[in-house]
Amino acid sequence: MEKSESTKIDVVETNKERKGKAPLLGTAPVVAAAGAVEHAKGGANRGIAIFDLILRIAAFASALGAAVAMGTTEETLPFFTQFFQFEASYDDLPTFTFFVAAMAIVVAYLVLSVPFSIVCIVRPHAVVPRLLLIIFDTVIIALTTGAAGSSAAIVYLAHNGNQDANWLAICQQFGDFCQRVSGAVVAAFVTVVILIFLVVLSASALRRHR
Amino acid sequence: MEKSESTKIDVVETNKERKGKAPLLGTAPVVAAAGAVEHAKGGANRGIAIFDLILRIAAFASALGAAVAMGTTEETLPFFTQFFQFEASYDDLPTFTFFVAAMAIVVAYLVLSVPFSIVCIVRPHAVVPRLLLIIFDTVIIALTTGAAGSSAAIVYLAHNGNQDANWLAICQQFGDFCQRVSGAVVAAFVTVVILIFLVVLSASALRRHR
Repeated sequence: MEKSESTKIDVVETNKERKGKAPLLGTAPVVAAAGAVEHAKGGANRGIAIFDLILRIAAFASALGAAVAMGTTEETLPFFTQFFQFEASYDDLPTFTFFVAAMAIVVAYLVLSVPFSIVCIVRPHAVVPRLLLIIFDTVIIALTTGAAGSSAAIVYLAHNGNQDANWLAICQQFGDFCQRVSGAVVAAFVTVVILIFLVVLSASALRRHR
Repeated sequence: MEKSESTKIDVVETNKERKGKAPLLGTAPVVAAAGAVEHAKGGANRGIAIFDLILRIAAFASALGAAVAMGTTEETLPFFTQFFQFEASYDDLPTFTFFVAAMAIVVAYLVLSVPFSIVCIVRPHAVVPRLLLIIFDTVIIALTTGAAGSSAAIVYLAHNGNQDANWLAICQQFGDFCQRVSGAVVAAFVTVVILIFLVVLSASALRRHR
């Protein structure tokens, strides 16, 4: 924006200079006013970029919490028979394994996206990093929601069971296990909400580039 | 863009007119050149908007297909005992009921978003409708992925069962039911992919507003 504008004003001046009557004083306040507008827009965009960075760190924290809570979940019941020891671990259910893998990817992405967010703070008018952030944030929203939704379905089944399919609830036995897993799912949904907010912020910052 | 530019040029002219030496011929080609650039950008944006509309209709079709396939799924086994008739229906599993409800919302949203998409075709420089589309598309991506992911987890369980939780696979008995449900989940994931592509398109169109 800044660039194209100054180019146009240069062209106007050149035209006038060719005609030998260049009212430079007349254009100066216009340029100054345009600069002030640019500056105000840059300030607003910088504020959005700083907020973006803070939200990104919050999303990182909740995604890491979800991954760690799920990944360290196992419960061994305090009684056992001669042949069995009853224990539940997250990797008994493939959905929870997917959850841990997906949240690990989300955590890694959020770490890698921080430099782009910082670039947006340093250069409030940069469009490409914002655009990249919007695109990859959207993909990561899909990944996180998929992991959170699938685990929520399994957690619901573990809590309530299903009579029609003859699947029994396992949370009566493994109460602690179910609590931790539910917590991890909630943390994943919190991450989704923060990520949606990040996309909305980035899109409104792009809009200000007009 | 168009508006602010014409305003600035007006100001320049006013300044010059006040000084009594207005080289109107000098500024005319500049305005024309700027108009040509605007026109080219508008054409690209219009192309993106038309593509957006086509993709939106495709997403509508796949979402409707997913909702209908899931909502009409039921299977009655061809044998029965004195007391039971074995049948499986999508509303035996709460996750599938959620899937149908979520996909119905997605279908309704996609219908309602078509006018906004048409506005973007008619006015390629309009920013507000594009911004609204990005924001709501992102929310709908989360909803669709949540529904698709949770149903995928249950479908996986129905196909494979889980030994650790003592949940038996039910697809041996209800093979047709499982096929239809799997098809609906795949259609939902196709919708997600199209929606992500829609957000990327809208964001890149916003970028062109510079």
